[in-house]
Amino acid sequence: MSDRIYNFSAGPAVLPEPVVKRAQQDVWNIAGSGIGILEHSHRGKVFERIIAEAEENCRHLAGIPGNYRVLFIQGSASLQFAMVPMNFLSPGRVADYLVTGVWAEKAVKEAKAIGTVHEAASGKAFKFTRIPNAAEIRYSPNPVYVHLTTNNTIYGTQWTAEPAVPKGVPLIADTSSDIFSRPIDVTRYGLIYAGAQKNLGPAGVALVIIRDDLIEAGSTGLPAILQYRAHAVERSLYNTAPTFGIYVMGEVFKWIRESGGLQAMARRNAEKAAILYDYLDDGTFYRGVAEAGSRSLMNVCFCAPTEQLDEQFANEAAKRGLSGLKGHRSAGGMRASIYNAFPKAGVEALVAFMKEFERAHRSAPATAARA
Amino acid sequence: MSDRIYNFSAGPAVLPEPVVKRAQQDVWNIAGSGIGILEHSHRGKVFERIIAEAEENCRHLAGIPGNYRVLFIQGSASLQFAMVPMNFLSPGRVADYLVTGVWAEKAVKEAKAIGTVHEAASGKAFKFTRIPNAAEIRYSPNPVYVHLTTNNTIYGTQWTAEPAVPKGVPLIADTSSDIFSRPIDVTRYGLIYAGAQKNLGPAGVALVIIRDDLIEAGSTGLPAILQYRAHAVERSLYNTAPTFGIYVMGEVFKWIRESGGLQAMARRNAEKAAILYDYLDDGTFYRGVAEAGSRSLMNVCFCAPTEQLDEQFANEAAKRGLSGLKGHRSAGGMRASIYNAFPKAGVEALVAFMKEFERAHRSAPATAARA
Repeated sequence: MSDRIYNFSAGPAVLPEPVVKRAQQDVWNIAGSGIGILEHSHRGKVFERIIAEAEENCRHLAGIPGNYRVLFIQGSASLQFAMVPMNFLSPGRVADYLVTGVWAEKAVKEAKAIGTVHEAASGKAFKFTRIPNAAEIRYSPNPVYVHLTTNNTIYGTQWTAEPAVPKGVPLIADTSSDIFSRPIDVTRYGLIYAGAQKNLGPAGVALVIIRDDLIEAGSTGLPAILQYRAHAVERSLYNTAPTFGIYVMGEVFKWIRESGGLQAMARRNAEKAAILYDYLDDGTFYRGVAEAGSRSLMNVCFCAPTEQLDEQFANEAAKRGLSGLKGHRSAGGMRASIYNAFPKAGVEALVAFMKEFERAHRSAPATAARA
Repeated sequence: MSDRIYNFSAGPAVLPEPVVKRAQQDVWNIAGSGIGILEHSHRGKVFERIIAEAEENCRHLAGIPGNYRVLFIQGSASLQFAMVPMNFLSPGRVADYLVTGVWAEKAVKEAKAIGTVHEAASGKAFKFTRIPNAAEIRYSPNPVYVHLTTNNTIYGTQWTAEPAVPKGVPLIADTSSDIFSRPIDVTRYGLIYAGAQKNLGPAGVALVIIRDDLIEAGSTGLPAILQYRAHAVERSLYNTAPTFGIYVMGEVFKWIRESGGLQAMARRNAEKAAILYDYLDDGTFYRGVAEAGSRSLMNVCFCAPTEQLDEQFANEAAKRGLSGLKGHRSAGGMRASIYNAFPKAGVEALVAFMKEFERAHRSAPATAARA
């Protein structure tokens, strides 16, 4: 029996166990080289092969066309919040943001340090419990780009499809919390970025998929490290790459391929999420946070009848080996993050515990009263 | 017997074996938590303790005063090349750089994208084979800061002490390749930064030690992620921290403390380097690159009599389990990087091989002819 527990953390999050086991070997001595993966030069043959394979597997998984570069950049999604407007939001232009939660707001805040931002839609009025619908989106006359956050961890909402954008305007997406959880049509985007620490690997590296014309369009007045151009020209080796993070991402890409690719991930994720949402829909004790049409398959957020019961739930669950269920401090309640690597058995264990907890506290007032 | 070889890589570089062995355990399940270090939330109790201990050990090792913050920032030293001028090089001011090699030149290049740079000294005329002397340094009238690179990996040169700087002007140092290899008087600096991947841990995180007044002085017009202020206020958790890199750095700090601290590191490093330099000084077959008064204890650079022999040397050495000895592509020759974690036995093995190679090729022309 494993000594590991069910880890519902929103990120850094659970990784596939075969990947972790492989890493245990490879940090000591990778590929018979006599040197561990942490200690290999980013310019040596061993790492050259790792990064080439990682890119190849990434391209294969998402069907990335030849006019897009795949880049691995240090600094996580938060640095991308800044790099995107620094590269593209030139004076006199307006960038449109679809604001679906705290992370989208952070992206807006960084862009406002650079130039003019238009919030083309915002879910703030309804506490981000759903994705804005098409009628609620109002683009500015000629945005330089449209930015969206595909999945919103804090409220458990997710875009089910890309919104329409004005013709010729690049769509830029922060996909940190649902990348490669389902098939993606890369051609709908100008730039896709994702911090690795939810679906792809450890914290400390972002995957960036960028169309060639955006690389060309980027500002040339920035320090090189902040230009996509520099990373593209040097194939992610402009500076010392975060080698271990890229290695783990590469292993995760292999694991996804071996598990059947993005279609298989989507099936598994839908199945896992349905176990939780079906249970929430069947009862009255717990209340789901996100509205039905906007529910995330990655983060399932729900509340018990009172805040006190929320706290009790998270604490008792942790004692049963169901860790990380406490909701984000800005939202409260519970959050079950069930990314690609999270096992179905863990979701079933959570529902079993939810039933048990409900039985023990059934006399509490119905959650509807709390909403 | 270990299946690991002697790794002379300039970075990412060899780590202490006890740290690597600990990491093998901790990626699976750290501190009995049932969750591996890669998968722990940066806001959970396990990681909180890791980062607090890492800071405490870092402060203890270097005797860091209370008016300095210790920050762990993603993006490596190359991002610091940009963040330093972005934060401090305001319009109308001049930043002075002491140019001792390619890495210092890269720092200059990034600063020039932001404002006015004065090269207070440059070793370019003598191919960076020594550190400029005091008489060669000419500061601008009122520099906003003075920037230096304490160790230059490519040529194997190192400042033996801090240069004098104009009164009240903060000295900012890139110490990526010699941090914690010897005692450091932090009070001589306004800001010290170091990419982790040579003496501290894996690639993907920089250690930043910054005085409070510089945090205050930093520009407020930047995206938050590029302001030292944001990282200081949130104690390195402004965004998702590179948790694994910080964990490894923390383990390396513990290893240095257990090994006797920075004084002990300095003794060991001097002893290791002396084995190589003494051998170079005693013979005529190989030629050391750096001038005697500027020799690095971290990177020992040398040439064989011909470029062809350089190549042969590096290839044959690799076959004997002496890896990574090929010099940087901009300098040629050989480079033995012997950071804190590199064992004395590996240096002895290198010298034994150098002797053997010399015996086999003694008939080659003297290296003096090549200089």
